[in-house]
Amino acid sequence: MATKQQHRNMADSAAKHETDELYQKAKRAKSDNENGGGAVRKEIECENILSEFKTTKVLSDSAREKNIFIHGKLADQDAVIILEKTPIREDTLAELFTGSTLKLEMKNDIYSTYRLQAPPQLNEIKTTVVCPATEKHIKKYQRQESFLVEETGADYQSITLPYIQKQSFSVQWVYNILEKKAEADRIVFEDPDPTVGFLLLPDFKWDQKQVDDLYLIAITLQRGIRSLRDLTQEHLPLLQNIFQKGKEAILQRYQLPASKLRVYLHYQPSYYHFHVHFTKLGYEAPGCGVERAHLLADVIQNLQADPEYYKTRTLYFPLRVDDGLLSKYKEAERL
Amino acid sequence: MATKQQHRNMADSAAKHETDELYQKAKRAKSDNENGGGAVRKEIECENILSEFKTTKVLSDSAREKNIFIHGKLADQDAVIILEKTPIREDTLAELFTGSTLKLEMKNDIYSTYRLQAPPQLNEIKTTVVCPATEKHIKKYQRQESFLVEETGADYQSITLPYIQKQSFSVQWVYNILEKKAEADRIVFEDPDPTVGFLLLPDFKWDQKQVDDLYLIAITLQRGIRSLRDLTQEHLPLLQNIFQKGKEAILQRYQLPASKLRVYLHYQPSYYHFHVHFTKLGYEAPGCGVERAHLLADVIQNLQADPEYYKTRTLYFPLRVDDGLLSKYKEAERL
Repeated sequence: MATKQQHRNMADSAAKHETDELYQKAKRAKSDNENGGGAVRKEIECENILSEFKTTKVLSDSAREKNIFIHGKLADQDAVIILEKTPIREDTLAELFTGSTLKLEMKNDIYSTYRLQAPPQLNEIKTTVVCPATEKHIKKYQRQESFLVEETGADYQSITLPYIQKQSFSVQWVYNILEKKAEADRIVFEDPDPTVGFLLLPDFKWDQKQVDDLYLIAITLQRGIRSLRDLTQEHLPLLQNIFQKGKEAILQRYQLPASKLRVYLHYQPSYYHFHVHFTKLGYEAPGCGVERAHLLADVIQNLQADPEYYKTRTLYFPLRVDDGLLSKYKEAERL
Repeated sequence: MATKQQHRNMADSAAKHETDELYQKAKRAKSDNENGGGAVRKEIECENILSEFKTTKVLSDSAREKNIFIHGKLADQDAVIILEKTPIREDTLAELFTGSTLKLEMKNDIYSTYRLQAPPQLNEIKTTVVCPATEKHIKKYQRQESFLVEETGADYQSITLPYIQKQSFSVQWVYNILEKKAEADRIVFEDPDPTVGFLLLPDFKWDQKQVDDLYLIAITLQRGIRSLRDLTQEHLPLLQNIFQKGKEAILQRYQLPASKLRVYLHYQPSYYHFHVHFTKLGYEAPGCGVERAHLLADVIQNLQADPEYYKTRTLYFPLRVDDGLLSKYKEAERL
């Protein structure tokens, strides 16, 4: 976990515009800090709660992304555990090469392959535990087919909105963040203005060890904006503020200029409290496909040209086969 | 087909293919080794040749796929080393859970995250060494950085359009297809109308062995539409025809309904003869990210609402650092 100290070191790196060089600096600064004798690195080794975990079922996995989603029991409670191997960090390569054991697998001409066994601290697995997990969590991580739904403005009013309202998905965890009851130490930037203000913090998916897969979320302080469909011209100052200050904060903290960022919203979002995604251009973040993502810059332009744009347009989005909303569209014979 | 972009794609896929092939060989070697009839399992722990490796440069890496391609020196010879973390295997989970150390990172409500340090033999890194490596190997694995360009309508007229016209990228290979001088046997569907007609055929990236990664291209018979920027309301019949008949042809040939398809254009396109991409929803096709793809359904709606939409809007797209157009934007101080 990148501490504030580390972030300060990263920000102290000279602000040059050759990005590659900056990555190196940021990485070095970070690594210096971690290896520095009396540094403030908090290492909380905890009881291995996973030794009690009983697997019920692998919900999904990806050989490409090296992750796995598992449903099981943790002390009689339903739990979901997500394991994902961490990216290989350039700043650990030298240590990795000298400190590992190699097992030869194959040798042919100029090519050879090995299995490398690395020191555990250089080869961690990011672990997320959801416990107790509800039926909905388990469903969420279960691999599912998706269908593209076509939602007119009228469909939104008659099918989607009533469904969202009836479900009343809990966003308590968002309010915990906004009220600084949780994750306060993870906040990267804060604009406290009640109307246009927001908090910027790393997404759970990002381990913050390298900027290559940078992923931050801006969460609005203003409550009640459910999604893209609720946006009108009155929200332009909010959107522009998030766009501008979010980019500035990322430049300052991670030395990543706006030309290296993909800034977008999801429709449908995962939770109905308004938020914006900032990911590194070139990192194929899950959910950055054209079928679900909307560039914030496009949203701003569309609202400037037509205040009713997102009330009246037909929007397209994928829904998983087990999504309750998809059943509503099937019932309405809209699929 | 001979554009720069295509050459690059082919090179990428060649690199990937070669890597895959090596992995297959390695897998076979491993499995032979593991199943070797009552023989003592030979665990060839070899001298750690990597401890002598001096990194020159990271050629590319993927935070998503957890791999890294490194150029360096191995005993005075040029070498490329490829590291890739291995997928998480279901059959090792129990051992992984009991045998690892956990470090708590964050706790909020029902969610908590940890760094898990696993026994090295349960968490190997697949390592490929190419030595001696030629200049061609090194280039093959070199990744190009991309930058997001912001192109106003005026930028298009003063920077992009003159560049496209001056380059006069050859689209002879497209004309060969349209005139049935090449690839005629690959045509999946044809509408011969000179104004709204098009040919539908599989993209080179698709091997047509399974529909999971279905990828087809619709190429207009009409010449002279360079890209999204040229589209006006007069093209609506063409766009609607491609959308409708393309979906019908795919349903008929591959039994894939419209709700399983992502239909979109690229801006910038790889070549400046108008074409539309049809890919399977759920397949993360290269170039389907929101920073480059535009849903055909959105394009149609935008033109219906505003005939000047694509003449006047600011459009965003990524350009690789070696792209001539990027230099033009830098010269114009637009980056």
